[in-house]
Amino acid sequence: MLGSLPSFARLVAELSKLPGIGGKTAARLAFHLLRSSEQNVAALAEALIEMKQKVGFCRRCFHVAETELCQICSDPAREEQRLCIVQEPQDLLAIERSHAYRGRYHVLHGALSPLDGIGPDDLKIPQLCQRLEQEPIEEVLLATNFSVEGEATAHYLARLFKERGLRVTRLAHGIPMGSDLEYIDAGTVQQAVNGRREL
Amino acid sequence: MLGSLPSFARLVAELSKLPGIGGKTAARLAFHLLRSSEQNVAALAEALIEMKQKVGFCRRCFHVAETELCQICSDPAREEQRLCIVQEPQDLLAIERSHAYRGRYHVLHGALSPLDGIGPDDLKIPQLCQRLEQEPIEEVLLATNFSVEGEATAHYLARLFKERGLRVTRLAHGIPMGSDLEYIDAGTVQQAVNGRREL
Repeated sequence: MLGSLPSFARLVAELSKLPGIGGKTAARLAFHLLRSSEQNVAALAEALIEMKQKVGFCRRCFHVAETELCQICSDPAREEQRLCIVQEPQDLLAIERSHAYRGRYHVLHGALSPLDGIGPDDLKIPQLCQRLEQEPIEEVLLATNFSVEGEATAHYLARLFKERGLRVTRLAHGIPMGSDLEYIDAGTVQQAVNGRREL
Repeated sequence: MLGSLPSFARLVAELSKLPGIGGKTAARLAFHLLRSSEQNVAALAEALIEMKQKVGFCRRCFHVAETELCQICSDPAREEQRLCIVQEPQDLLAIERSHAYRGRYHVLHGALSPLDGIGPDDLKIPQLCQRLEQEPIEEVLLATNFSVEGEATAHYLARLFKERGLRVTRLAHGIPMGSDLEYIDAGTVQQAVNGRREL
C-alpha cells in the first residue's frame, strides 16, 4: 500500500521499532508528522541526535548523566553512608520522586536471570563491589523489583553485603496508599499484616 | 527530576508532542532510545528528515505522494469516470485495502465544521470543483466519515454534484463482517434493515 512512498514507508518502519508502537500507531504518527511544520520535525530529529551525543551514564553509579558524574553523585549533601540499589534509571527516578531517601544510588541495569544467561558480570555488580571497598557505606537499601528476577537479585546481593558486615534493608511490602483493602491481592495483605507497625 | 539532563529532557518533550504519547510513554521511549545503538537512533532521525523533504501531496487528488502525481492518479488503468471523496489519506488507504474500488480519489483534508470555522475553502473543495470541469467524471462516491461533520460534508457535496447532473453514491451502512447482531447498536441495525438486499 505504501510501496509508492518509500520515504514515508521508511519512517513508518523506523517508528514501528519503538517499544509499544505497532504498525497502525506508527502510520498514525507518520501522518501527524507529515502535517507538522518542518521546524517541528527537525526539532525532533535534532533532539534524537543530541540525546545520543550528550547523554550517557554516570561513571560511578551508572544513572543517566550528561556529565561524567550524575547530579546525585556530585551532590555533597547526599548521605554517602547509604546506598540504594535499583535495576533501572527509571526506578531511581521513582524513588527520587518520593523525597524519602537522601543517600546515593547504584543502577544495576538489569536483574540476575540465569535462564536468560544474565549473571553478576552482565550487570554493574563488579563495579558495585568496588564501590563498597572505596566508599564509607554502612547501609544498603535493596530496591530491585518484586519480580522473580528482582527478588533473586536482592537475595544474591543481601548475602554478599552481609558477609561484609553491612546493614541490608529492603523496600517494605504493604498496602498501596489510597487503596481499598477489598481489591488487594491476598499475598500483599499477608505481607501487610506480617509487617504491621505499632501506632 | 530531569533538570540535570537537558538533552534527555528535550527529547522527552519533543516525543510528548506526538499524538497519543504522554509524558510517561515519552520517557519510556527516550530510555529505549538511550539504550539503542547510535545507528538505530540516527536511522530514525534521518527517516524523519527525509520524509519531510520528499513526501508531499499529489497536485491533483491531494493524496500523499513523493512525486508530482500520486501512484493512483498516474495509473492509466484506473477508471477515470469514477471519483471517490475521502476526508484523509488514511481513509483512501482503507478503501484501497478493500480492493473493491478501481476509480480515482479526491482527498479533502478535513470535513466541513462551521463551529470550528472550517468552510469549503478551507478544504480541497475548490480544487474538486475544478476537477469536475476538466475530467470526464460520471459517478461520485462519497466516503467521508459517518460523523456529524462527515455527514454534513457529504450532504453539501451531494447537492453540489447533483446540480451538475452527476450520479452521487454513498458508502453503505450495515452490519460489519463477522459481527454478532446482539452487540450492534440499534441505529446500525435499523440502517441494515432499511437497506436490505434481495438474495
